[in-house]
Amino acid sequence: MAAEIVNPRSDSVTDNGPEGPDAAFALHRGGKMAVQATVPVRDKDDLSLAYTPGVAKVCSAIAEQPELVHEYTWKSNVVAVVTDGTAVLGLGDIGPEASLPVMEGKAILFKQFGGVDAVPIALATTDTDEIVDTVVRMAPSFGGVNLEDISAPRCFEIERKLQERLDIPVFHDDQHGTAIVTLAALRNAARLTGRTLADLRAVISGAGAAGIAIAKFLLEAGIGDVCVTDRKGVVSQDREVLTDAKREIAQISNRTGLSGSLETALAGADVFIGVSGGTVAEPAVASMAKNAFVFAMANPNPEVHPDIAHRYAAVVATGRSDFPNQINNVLAFPGIFAGALRVRASRITEGMKIAAADAIAGVVGDELSADYVIPSPFDERVAIAVSNAVAAAARAEGVARRA
Amino acid sequence: MAAEIVNPRSDSVTDNGPEGPDAAFALHRGGKMAVQATVPVRDKDDLSLAYTPGVAKVCSAIAEQPELVHEYTWKSNVVAVVTDGTAVLGLGDIGPEASLPVMEGKAILFKQFGGVDAVPIALATTDTDEIVDTVVRMAPSFGGVNLEDISAPRCFEIERKLQERLDIPVFHDDQHGTAIVTLAALRNAARLTGRTLADLRAVISGAGAAGIAIAKFLLEAGIGDVCVTDRKGVVSQDREVLTDAKREIAQISNRTGLSGSLETALAGADVFIGVSGGTVAEPAVASMAKNAFVFAMANPNPEVHPDIAHRYAAVVATGRSDFPNQINNVLAFPGIFAGALRVRASRITEGMKIAAADAIAGVVGDELSADYVIPSPFDERVAIAVSNAVAAAARAEGVARRA
Repeated sequence: MAAEIVNPRSDSVTDNGPEGPDAAFALHRGGKMAVQATVPVRDKDDLSLAYTPGVAKVCSAIAEQPELVHEYTWKSNVVAVVTDGTAVLGLGDIGPEASLPVMEGKAILFKQFGGVDAVPIALATTDTDEIVDTVVRMAPSFGGVNLEDISAPRCFEIERKLQERLDIPVFHDDQHGTAIVTLAALRNAARLTGRTLADLRAVISGAGAAGIAIAKFLLEAGIGDVCVTDRKGVVSQDREVLTDAKREIAQISNRTGLSGSLETALAGADVFIGVSGGTVAEPAVASMAKNAFVFAMANPNPEVHPDIAHRYAAVVATGRSDFPNQINNVLAFPGIFAGALRVRASRITEGMKIAAADAIAGVVGDELSADYVIPSPFDERVAIAVSNAVAAAARAEGVARRA
Repeated sequence: MAAEIVNPRSDSVTDNGPEGPDAAFALHRGGKMAVQATVPVRDKDDLSLAYTPGVAKVCSAIAEQPELVHEYTWKSNVVAVVTDGTAVLGLGDIGPEASLPVMEGKAILFKQFGGVDAVPIALATTDTDEIVDTVVRMAPSFGGVNLEDISAPRCFEIERKLQERLDIPVFHDDQHGTAIVTLAALRNAARLTGRTLADLRAVISGAGAAGIAIAKFLLEAGIGDVCVTDRKGVVSQDREVLTDAKREIAQISNRTGLSGSLETALAGADVFIGVSGGTVAEPAVASMAKNAFVFAMANPNPEVHPDIAHRYAAVVATGRSDFPNQINNVLAFPGIFAGALRVRASRITEGMKIAAADAIAGVVGDELSADYVIPSPFDERVAIAVSNAVAAAARAEGVARRA
């Protein structure tokens, strides 16, 4: 229809941002995404197929054979990006509306990198059970659920309850996406220095969603040992007050029984993994083992500046795009959902996540170097490799409902 | 990215429909809609604006000034199409998954005719309070809520409670869309025959969402009298067992105190409005007043076949596209939401609905004839006229939050 009336964007003014011209505000004006019809609705005949009366027989067929919903609607390719706005970027609890630009960004990354449609759903509740009930109720419309920027420890319970109640993939990207890409980088760093995961002891700074998930996932993958630290130091069994999630991590990690500060734990460690936003002093980095890896992933300020890290470490990675080896979740989530949706996986298993990490690592291949342990987010081979690996793993693990 | 992996649609087989080749199934394969990015995400620089770090300042700005969410996200232009799958087309309670093809159809009509983005949300609950709570919780993501195919009488309470709790437009299209387009047709039919609404007595067959809403709306607009009939006959105050919605209608309608059957009520009536799916025998049509109007809107089988209706009536309308004067909601809802969203209306008032009906009627203009009391759904002037009229009415009624 005519441009005159329809899109609120079209009559937007051209200024940018509440504080004057700004490229980010300019780009965000009117939002970053839209819906499009993939079938024509130009005339009576189109309408009689896409809408009444033609649509009725499609509805009836799905009512009789529920699995046909995957064949004849966009459910098979659409993911809800669900947040409550409590842990948005480094900004914290800014609420659902203010989180929407990030959720839209996530949605367009799903599309651009994985061909997956995604819809931002920012919720006006932070109550665990209300979030779970709400997502369960809207699940018929979606092929998968990507949880995003929900604060710990609620994120663990929300994900677990949703996985129990739904038969579609539920994936908290801040946990597993980060863990998968970290493992991919670690595999290649180990290969570069002639070691295996079992040879490595890692120290994680940060015991939120990402830190806890990375620790679990690296243990799952066979790392020698890992210990997690929070603001009070090593999360160890001798700590008296711990959340459930930290208590669980204390039981399965830190096999050498460390206690005390992050700096103490780093002495002789092979790997530093920063997901905290804090800083680590240079002497602590210097105290790490020979050929250490420093993955300082806090944004925008890495826990250890790469220039300093390079004085001591064999491999340095960050979360930033302006240094080599960017640990970026976009390497994982688009391909993971593309693969899981393609085979209609009922869930995303540990095996599928390991397969995703290996696929990401595999793209680096023979070009492996200290500055290239992880592919670029814009390497188109990544999502294809991840998707295929995840689909194959889903089949192998018996959670695929479609060949 | 490469077509190889991403879209489950791409590896779909080319057969069509569970019972062999069928154009409707072929068209529906993979669904009818998709999400698209409206900003580039091709390289590092794009990503640094659309996602981190650039997105952070947009989030912060919204956290400080909540109304900026309308400027810098797609909230300002996206409507949730919400159903519980209990009253889908003529199919009834087929559940949320089976309703999705209709909701997708609605969504692409929103886009095609109004430039409004829309997302199907089919809920796995039929509990009134659960539906209300769920929609309230996801409302931060949306600029409006279009309720669809929710059975009466729950639809009345759900809409009322949502309107009370939300400050965005909530509109049950099966009620108000139908009522608005019916009023538009009625205005023009009256004009054609030299009468006003006040001269007319209408009989509505069907006391569900549409019948109740049409009765209320025509009374609001100043019709002489209206009575509603259900399977037991006229909904009158002397009926002992009535739902709340029917009790209310009995109190405000049927001023002449009719009782008994639909046929009894039709004797001498000026207007028949069918939204029931039943049939009306020819003698009852013959008993109507001179220059009667027959709006037999049941699909696919009108309550009175147009060939029969034309023997007695001055104006005949149906819900079908293959007869003249199709009463089709698509004339209303895209422009109504486009106009309401454009001025950021907090609700859709009676005045905005009347303005929409008058705008639809107005498009017919001087071309008015017995076979043209309502514009074609494909007349591009309609949504523009409706949107502008609704926006103006919202401003006049003080519910617009933006010029």
